[in-house]
Amino acid sequence: MFSRQKLITEINKKKSFLCVGLDTDITKIPPHLLSEPDPIFAFNKAIIDATKDFCVSYKINTAFFEATGAKGWESMQRTFDYLPKDCLSIADAKRGDIGNTSNQYAKAFFETLNADSVTLAPYMGNDSLAPFFEYPGKWGIVLALTSNPGSADYEQQKIGEEFLFEKVLANTGKIGSDENLMFVVGATKPQEFTIIRKHAPKHFLLVPGVGAQGGSLEEVVKYGKIEDIGLLINASRSIIYASNGLDFAEAAAKEAKALQNQMAVFI
Amino acid sequence: MFSRQKLITEINKKKSFLCVGLDTDITKIPPHLLSEPDPIFAFNKAIIDATKDFCVSYKINTAFFEATGAKGWESMQRTFDYLPKDCLSIADAKRGDIGNTSNQYAKAFFETLNADSVTLAPYMGNDSLAPFFEYPGKWGIVLALTSNPGSADYEQQKIGEEFLFEKVLANTGKIGSDENLMFVVGATKPQEFTIIRKHAPKHFLLVPGVGAQGGSLEEVVKYGKIEDIGLLINASRSIIYASNGLDFAEAAAKEAKALQNQMAVFI
Repeated sequence: MFSRQKLITEINKKKSFLCVGLDTDITKIPPHLLSEPDPIFAFNKAIIDATKDFCVSYKINTAFFEATGAKGWESMQRTFDYLPKDCLSIADAKRGDIGNTSNQYAKAFFETLNADSVTLAPYMGNDSLAPFFEYPGKWGIVLALTSNPGSADYEQQKIGEEFLFEKVLANTGKIGSDENLMFVVGATKPQEFTIIRKHAPKHFLLVPGVGAQGGSLEEVVKYGKIEDIGLLINASRSIIYASNGLDFAEAAAKEAKALQNQMAVFI
Repeated sequence: MFSRQKLITEINKKKSFLCVGLDTDITKIPPHLLSEPDPIFAFNKAIIDATKDFCVSYKINTAFFEATGAKGWESMQRTFDYLPKDCLSIADAKRGDIGNTSNQYAKAFFETLNADSVTLAPYMGNDSLAPFFEYPGKWGIVLALTSNPGSADYEQQKIGEEFLFEKVLANTGKIGSDENLMFVVGATKPQEFTIIRKHAPKHFLLVPGVGAQGGSLEEVVKYGKIEDIGLLINASRSIIYASNGLDFAEAAAKEAKALQNQMAVFI
């Protein structure tokens, strides 16, 4: 249970709308951790301890854990179990399937992992997403306009007068509200936030692409911020891989604090 | 490594283009299996043993395994390891994300699970799918026109003169060929196969929706079959849950054989 109001309260308390992305790659973590019984979890735990005062959310990228199979899922479970309760937990999984299958994914993320939210891919339509919105207190975070060049292939194609991503914003609004539905909108297209806000005036937006992908925090805030902030800005690689040495956690804290400082002026 | 030619050879040998879908739900398997150390795998093993002469492919629905977390992934790994080498293995995962994340999913399915193929969701565009096509001998199976009612929301919307699913067929063709790219096309819309074949004349199509979802085998063959067959017809629930008793495997074999018999006349 992580309500919209709780998220706003945490943002105001911490003067931050930062989400730290745990895209934890075994080949990129500091070598001294590899002797730990669960190196991936040891890394995540240290990063969480170092950054939790500067962020209001953690985004766990399921791909990086699935890459090593069952062992990776154990590390993922430990990570979700360890996340502080004052931070919104996001399973960045981009799932979506026919109803009876989406039911199983909802069970995986909302029951087994006990995530507060999960990212969803809308291609198959509303009935493929609906099962995720049947869990009280949980969030679905639906892909709208993503930060990668491939967003031009379909998302930015026009259906009648509107872009596909606009159709997704409007149509998904039929199965969720700003109390349980967010959208993914990439930081690399800040001007587009004006269009986004026409369809999602009060929804929180999960914004990847600041940092490694080159998006600008100021531009995102300029075009996307609302009275209740309404933004979760994700940074992954620029924080978690800030150093590859013994000081990796301190370096991550420094990067997270720098972003939090930039955000504080807008709150 | 499972080439197009090998698939065609197996289809001709077995007189079948059946894919058996393992959507294995712990709450639906026969109660006598629940005392097994790994009931999900015990069920899958028995189903595979009973049906392998009547099908050329198995589709493992990742959601049903992820629902129980790391334990489920162990069952999934055992299932992939057990699949007969003359059947194309499909990880029905519907993944798709930015490049560095899709790389990790490709690793999960093509290396860790050693699946021959994985289903992919195209919403984020070609660069989100490209990493899956960099594995020689492996297949990407991209969602085009799905069998659920929600396919009307976006897939069947027009972008210019063409449906979104047509754009997906044409555009994905730039990163894969009929040697490593298939499409998902639901059996519930058989007339649409005529449009599909305009864009994918030689591609194999993975066709769910026969059986529990009400699609007709005859109609799919009428509109979708090509000289090299070009179809994998999936049936899941109608086969694997044909009986909930001690005879579940025999009942599954009977259902699979009945479908194989219906298919044999078209080969």
